[in-house]
Amino acid sequence: MNRLPEQRLRAFTYSIFKSIGCPDADAALATDVLVTADLRGVDSHGVARLSGYVRLWENGRLNATPKPHVVHETPTTATVDGDGGLGLVVAPYAMEIAIEKARQYGSGWVAIRNSNHFGIAGYHALRAVAHDMIGYAVTNASPLVAPTFSTERLLGTNPVCYAFPAGEYPPVVVDMATSAAANGKLEVAGRAGNPIPEGWALSADGQATTDAAAVKNGGALLPLGSDREHGSHKGFGLSATVDILSGVLSGANYGPWVPPFVAYLQPVADQPGQGIGHFVGAMRVDGFRPVADFKANMDQWIARFKGARRVEERQPVIIPGEPEHKATRTNRERGIPLVEAVWTDLQQLAAKLGVTPLVMEGEGIPDKG
Amino acid sequence: MNRLPEQRLRAFTYSIFKSIGCPDADAALATDVLVTADLRGVDSHGVARLSGYVRLWENGRLNATPKPHVVHETPTTATVDGDGGLGLVVAPYAMEIAIEKARQYGSGWVAIRNSNHFGIAGYHALRAVAHDMIGYAVTNASPLVAPTFSTERLLGTNPVCYAFPAGEYPPVVVDMATSAAANGKLEVAGRAGNPIPEGWALSADGQATTDAAAVKNGGALLPLGSDREHGSHKGFGLSATVDILSGVLSGANYGPWVPPFVAYLQPVADQPGQGIGHFVGAMRVDGFRPVADFKANMDQWIARFKGARRVEERQPVIIPGEPEHKATRTNRERGIPLVEAVWTDLQQLAAKLGVTPLVMEGEGIPDKG
Repeated sequence: MNRLPEQRLRAFTYSIFKSIGCPDADAALATDVLVTADLRGVDSHGVARLSGYVRLWENGRLNATPKPHVVHETPTTATVDGDGGLGLVVAPYAMEIAIEKARQYGSGWVAIRNSNHFGIAGYHALRAVAHDMIGYAVTNASPLVAPTFSTERLLGTNPVCYAFPAGEYPPVVVDMATSAAANGKLEVAGRAGNPIPEGWALSADGQATTDAAAVKNGGALLPLGSDREHGSHKGFGLSATVDILSGVLSGANYGPWVPPFVAYLQPVADQPGQGIGHFVGAMRVDGFRPVADFKANMDQWIARFKGARRVEERQPVIIPGEPEHKATRTNRERGIPLVEAVWTDLQQLAAKLGVTPLVMEGEGIPDKG
Repeated sequence: MNRLPEQRLRAFTYSIFKSIGCPDADAALATDVLVTADLRGVDSHGVARLSGYVRLWENGRLNATPKPHVVHETPTTATVDGDGGLGLVVAPYAMEIAIEKARQYGSGWVAIRNSNHFGIAGYHALRAVAHDMIGYAVTNASPLVAPTFSTERLLGTNPVCYAFPAGEYPPVVVDMATSAAANGKLEVAGRAGNPIPEGWALSADGQATTDAAAVKNGGALLPLGSDREHGSHKGFGLSATVDILSGVLSGANYGPWVPPFVAYLQPVADQPGQGIGHFVGAMRVDGFRPVADFKANMDQWIARFKGARRVEERQPVIIPGEPEHKATRTNRERGIPLVEAVWTDLQQLAAKLGVTPLVMEGEGIPDKG
């Protein structure tokens, strides 16, 4: 495990995006989204994905110089065409429109089509929180999840994020995939040679399985709730909501037509829409009540839940967003941890693109642990 | 099981609400909410609850002649004080404001405080669908659910509803509690002397249990996801979102302070807000794209999911809202089924309030099966 100072990882990521032709501002913004994920400890959605975005660009599936633009609008709603650009750039563009609409009218909602993977939903929702607004961000994604009663991968892990400002405490950020488990967790179990818990995935023939390779071998992830008896139809319903807001409402693709993030899989033919879709929104807290009153009650809410009676004495209730807030502080101080595989991948990417490789210096010398 | 013609159940329910002093329009509206739940087959939230509302009124916890009013407003947001009235009346009042705001500005969002139980969330969200809008409705509720890592009941089953118009197909209505199972399911299992599946509830000392009486005996329901390994922190996060939008944003109560629906439990002291809270919203579909395009894609979405490859040949994928749509057709034709316990409860209620009891006539003669 290496720990790299934030600024060094930012500079490196920025030069990768520049090297594929992104304008300065876009490269800086995309860097901010990815490095924020790593800072927050969501390393599955940080620079580990950088080479994936580059491969999409190499395959002609990503426009490095997009001109995102509004194609339909009312005072508080809009649809943005992302012009095939990075979701990392297009989604913040759309969120700024939502925030401006909220500033003027109380709330703003923007559907986005013709985009690509937008990183962590929490980044986008948190942009609204900085303005004392409630932020909302969802996206559809490569189909990996089977609806209840089906064996077919028709939905992505379709995350939902709500972010709420608080007072003394950090913002409450609910940022969650609508599947029982993320695909990355199966990969980790597979690499370690471990089985997975029942309830994460189905085998290709629709049976419950503990095989970490189930999805690779034609199976599917399960919706949150895992099985019908435990409410998987609710996880399916939530994921459907995300797919409809992101894909159907925007004019993007939806369901099995959502183009895969991995460049070695081609998008299916006869797509009903353009690219992948997102949906973001912002509501002014003071559109409902004075901000100070809201924040005081948020703090009381958080304190009450943090202090809840515990099942095990050593494990308190975790407030959504709290671990990511703590991770950010740690990673700012101590550097951002990069596992060996990601470090190697980034160095290969640098070599391929002719970018200065990552270097560890001083206390940052690689700790190959 | 009796089946009662819809109109007769409506007339009866209306006279009960009138008898406790509700104005004509309020009695008709509250009746529509409850009977719609029964038509949709959600009998846990229909006239089975009528005597519960009456007991709240008897206990001075329900204002039968409320004057709901806007206390805070921007062009697309508002907070409504429900004046202690029936949520069945207050929530539609708020939703009409959201719809009017959406008509003018594209979207509308209303937080509601000082209210009571609002029936099925789907009723409120569907009001928006009638205007080719996307409807949203959530509410907090009596605390029964423990957050992940806690044994304490701090959240209600806090339902989330999104409703989307479609074209040839009925609307897609995702209307779900954010707990793994509803409390009513434990009661049904208990009455039948059956155990419950692990993952629905915790015992009072925080252990996994199959005891249907667990919640009655001081335990708690579990969030959607059931345990941490299967994503219960996501169910907790969703439920938290509902609680914050409904309670904290509106100035209602939240968490453990939400007043219980059952009149024999007193609200806890030192409440931070007023009554229970809801949050509703509406977005014009044509604020994003032409309605016809959206509906055509919705129909394609629905057809694709309905046609998905099945785990078992006899069980197709169920589109959210489809069973309720079918139930409505059946119950309109054949009458609304009332189980014996509810029938008896309604007759006792009629006797107590001096209202004409329910009568079965012609093909409607009670079938005490």
